[in-house]
Amino acid sequence: MTDTHLVDGADATLIVTGKDQPGLVAAVSSLLRDVGANIFTLDQYSTDASGGRFFQRTQFFLDGFSAARARLETELDGIAREFGLSWKLTDQSVPKRVAIFASKSDHCLLDLLWRQRRGELPVTISMVIANHAELADEVRFFGVPFFHTPTVSTDHSDVEAEQLRLITGNVDFVVLARYMQIFTPEFIERAGVPIINIHHSFLPAFVGAAPYRKAKERGVKLIGATAHYITADLDEGPIIEQDVVRVSHDDTVEQLARRGADVERQVLARAVLWHAQDRVIRTENQTIVF
Amino acid sequence: MTDTHLVDGADATLIVTGKDQPGLVAAVSSLLRDVGANIFTLDQYSTDASGGRFFQRTQFFLDGFSAARARLETELDGIAREFGLSWKLTDQSVPKRVAIFASKSDHCLLDLLWRQRRGELPVTISMVIANHAELADEVRFFGVPFFHTPTVSTDHSDVEAEQLRLITGNVDFVVLARYMQIFTPEFIERAGVPIINIHHSFLPAFVGAAPYRKAKERGVKLIGATAHYITADLDEGPIIEQDVVRVSHDDTVEQLARRGADVERQVLARAVLWHAQDRVIRTENQTIVF
Amino acid sequence: MTDTHLVDGADATLIVTGKDQPGLVAAVSSLLRDVGANIFTLDQYSTDASGGRFFQRTQFFLDGFSAARARLETELDGIAREFGLSWKLTDQSVPKRVAIFASKSDHCLLDLLWRQRRGELPVTISMVIANHAELADEVRFFGVPFFHTPTVSTDHSDVEAEQLRLITGNVDFVVLARYMQIFTPEFIERAGVPIINIHHSFLPAFVGAAPYRKAKERGVKLIGATAHYITADLDEGPIIEQDVVRVSHDDTVEQLARRGADVERQVLARAVLWHAQDRVIRTENQTIVF
Amino acid sequence: MTDTHLVDGADATLIVTGKDQPGLVAAVSSLLRDVGANIFTLDQYSTDASGGRFFQRTQFFLDGFSAARARLETELDGIAREFGLSWKLTDQSVPKRVAIFASKSDHCLLDLLWRQRRGELPVTISMVIANHAELADEVRFFGVPFFHTPTVSTDHSDVEAEQLRLITGNVDFVVLARYMQIFTPEFIERAGVPIINIHHSFLPAFVGAAPYRKAKERGVKLIGATAHYITADLDEGPIIEQDVVRVSHDDTVEQLARRGADVERQVLARAVLWHAQDRVIRTENQTIVF
Repeated sequence: MTDTHLVDGADATLIVTGKDQPGLVAAVSSLLRDVGANIFTLDQYSTDASGGRFFQRTQFFLDGFSAARARLETELDGIAREFGLSWKLTDQSVPKRVAIFASKSDHCLLDLLWRQRRGELPVTISMVIANHAELADEVRFFGVPFFHTPTVSTDHSDVEAEQLRLITGNVDFVVLARYMQIFTPEFIERAGVPIINIHHSFLPAFVGAAPYRKAKERGVKLIGATAHYITADLDEGPIIEQDVVRVSHDDTVEQLARRGADVERQVLARAVLWHAQDRVIRTENQTIVF
Repeated sequence: MTDTHLVDGADATLIVTGKDQPGLVAAVSSLLRDVGANIFTLDQYSTDASGGRFFQRTQFFLDGFSAARARLETELDGIAREFGLSWKLTDQSVPKRVAIFASKSDHCLLDLLWRQRRGELPVTISMVIANHAELADEVRFFGVPFFHTPTVSTDHSDVEAEQLRLITGNVDFVVLARYMQIFTPEFIERAGVPIINIHHSFLPAFVGAAPYRKAKERGVKLIGATAHYITADLDEGPIIEQDVVRVSHDDTVEQLARRGADVERQVLARAVLWHAQDRVIRTENQTIVF
Repeated sequence: MTDTHLVDGADATLIVTGKDQPGLVAAVSSLLRDVGANIFTLDQYSTDASGGRFFQRTQFFLDGFSAARARLETELDGIAREFGLSWKLTDQSVPKRVAIFASKSDHCLLDLLWRQRRGELPVTISMVIANHAELADEVRFFGVPFFHTPTVSTDHSDVEAEQLRLITGNVDFVVLARYMQIFTPEFIERAGVPIINIHHSFLPAFVGAAPYRKAKERGVKLIGATAHYITADLDEGPIIEQDVVRVSHDDTVEQLARRGADVERQVLARAVLWHAQDRVIRTENQTIVF
Repeated sequence: MTDTHLVDGADATLIVTGKDQPGLVAAVSSLLRDVGANIFTLDQYSTDASGGRFFQRTQFFLDGFSAARARLETELDGIAREFGLSWKLTDQSVPKRVAIFASKSDHCLLDLLWRQRRGELPVTISMVIANHAELADEVRFFGVPFFHTPTVSTDHSDVEAEQLRLITGNVDFVVLARYMQIFTPEFIERAGVPIINIHHSFLPAFVGAAPYRKAKERGVKLIGATAHYITADLDEGPIIEQDVVRVSHDDTVEQLARRGADVERQVLARAVLWHAQDRVIRTENQTIVF
């Protein structure tokens, strides 16, 4: 995949996490050397000098990675047992598959579609699912399937069931591009893949609905956006990325929303890119972003 | 005052506020022309096309401003009666007098002392009042009186009474440079001058104590600081200025505090400058900053 | 035009420039009052306390502006003669017409098309002119005419003649959205309308071609973009807006270009918006942006 | 050293550079494991997938680092010979010694003195050397020796000789905190330690003298500052850090200088911190900053 390599460059990415202890870096890097890999970048972080948690992301080049993969995985299992680690190995030539959920707002959705087409996002956008029909033509212009799952009652179970049928087995993660429905905890659990949301405020300020109106009322001088993983606790999931933009007393709520839209799409695009590149590691309710 | 003029340049500043209606700008600017003033900058803002509130700040040059002031004030009273306005006229050659309250942290305090000495802040720092003694030498090195008002019990009434004796009649506003005591509503009322505080978070996120610890726990990717006027509602007063800095998963709470200190002193310095320049107009629980 | 009013709110904008002198603000605002206008915002700036140049932008509401316009213009002529001023009156309900020039890069072009459709830019995009054909479908999807004017030789005179035929009388300004041809001075003069360009560096750093390569070689830690008016001096025209983004040693030239693209489209969009709102006043080789 | 550990946390830092090849990370990390070290952070960067240059910074904990150091160095020499690498091992409990050069401007100098006293900079400020006497009291208030080396003629050789006598053997690096003299190439060579300068513009824009005046004339919308290592080519040395601040048409040259001063001191403080933490690796005319 040229596009993928445009973005990052290596053949594979290895994430290792676990209890910190001497010798972890040596064990993993020796294994990579023994299979003939050349490490391109390595980022490592421990939460404490002793007894903390250990996080490592390694990108490496390895001719014939597909052929060597099975052996590498077996050896990683061995190290994992020895040190009590978890690991995840990703073939960077295989783009992750994503379903984007949207409602009526187009700014985050179009930005993702456009960046993907441009080769900036190493993902395949498998489908767009929306509870409104307005954006169908836009999405199909990009050659992406558009599925309309309208919300017909306060009981979302039928809609969610249909959405689950569409995504199950077909996508590696989900992005909510200003999708204005709240999922049930059951949906989140049954989806079984990470779900990234963009919240239109600098969390934890202005949780819940209408953050721009609340921002105007409070008279803040900056507004922001937050990309985070969805959990059962609304607006409380692990934060991936945030940014802000300066506003002024003469911005109306509508102007705040317009300025905010620019921040939303940038923040969401960065979060999706980093997730697609396996840069983001969840730990408790936080993220490590390498 | 060379320093004052270095900062801004004009002889006087006129703030006018009231119910918006046609003819306000013309009435005020015609009056200024008639007394021989030359307008240097004029900023005007109305909250709505009709029926809103009107805010105007005008800086002007006027040879012999002191002599002309009485006449100008009489005429302003006339316009104010006619249009139902409020106004405030400030001689820019007279720096505002400020008392800075501090505790043990030196970063905001020293930054203000240093900027004032450098000619960046058009204020006279009349005194520093602290509930700890550690910063006495530092403050006096700048030639500024230092008064130690230790907190000896949970009843702050004696301390506040002494603080009121020190500032009453002597200062035009108060700045809390990371002063770690909470004033009683009575103190705020009896002080009778604006009180500017720096809060070490991006309000309304992380109100109350220990915001950097809360920020670490929530895993935010930016931390901020907020300068606001003190009201009886803790951390709820009108916001003057805010800013943020990017942080990462590997910043400890101590490192967040250190990065935050840089933002705090910049945000507070801007708020103090703008207040000293009569750029900040309070309206309900918000500010207009021209 | 709902869209226009969404953006800014007033009925008309008046720009006045000239030699600074007492009474200018009063004269203009009294005239507006006399025709029944209500001033919504007024920004004024003088380059010096005395003998400087005066710049003022006023937005106002006026029921029946079209009917009152002739009288207003006559009176403005009177004031202009008395004080030696220049003025420009703009009906905000009439969006400015723009031709966008492009080559192969789509990021700036699509961003402008999308913002205009969204109601963020108070302009009519009359046409897109490109020296390559690749973007035709994209542009026409937005319902905008696309004209292909390929460069067939080193002599651009035929191409420029055709471009002039297309735009003459049809547009109020031109935007170069990463258009990779250099106009002759004759084209600029005969076009007779402002031409806004986006340069992919923080001017005056890295003038000329291949700025991202030069930035990589110099090892800068920030890259930027600059929107400016085109003059006969390449890359030397008055700057309207600039911004930067942080980069790192591990960004390749291609990654710098990708990060830069985000800054380019934002900077250009702001410059186009401000120009369309008559916020930008040229003076010598600089701009006043209210 | 509490202060040092406050800043970063580990016992030692190891920098390794050389020609990229498989097995480098494994070799270094295995060695560290074998001596009982626990890696705290590891940053690695290669300029290319194959045949590029390799840069690695490792921070580690090692009880009894001083005792183990000799063995570690011997083994590092072995690896260095085998792979053709260079390495540098730093004891983080020993702060680097710095001489700060100044002239009349106090902002960068005081900021460094104050940050060091606060425990934000893991350095010992051994002396301040100035060609003007004005800042002597300020410096000595911090308990730091102040040496006055006035420039008495256009021939700087006597002054530079005295400066070399002061610093030789006494400091590990030099910081020019708005020192307004240009060193001869001989001084730079004979000093034999890194020299960090702060340039008051966003290099390569506005090289040479009076950058704020040039910025005003060009009408830029952002001004910046650049910290870089000094080489014989004035303003052309490797850039460590840069930042910018937004300015406006109504900023005078003096106001640009004042706004710029805030950026200068922040950029210089970051560059000094990162250099002191061995985060900055020079390669050709660029820097890697981990």
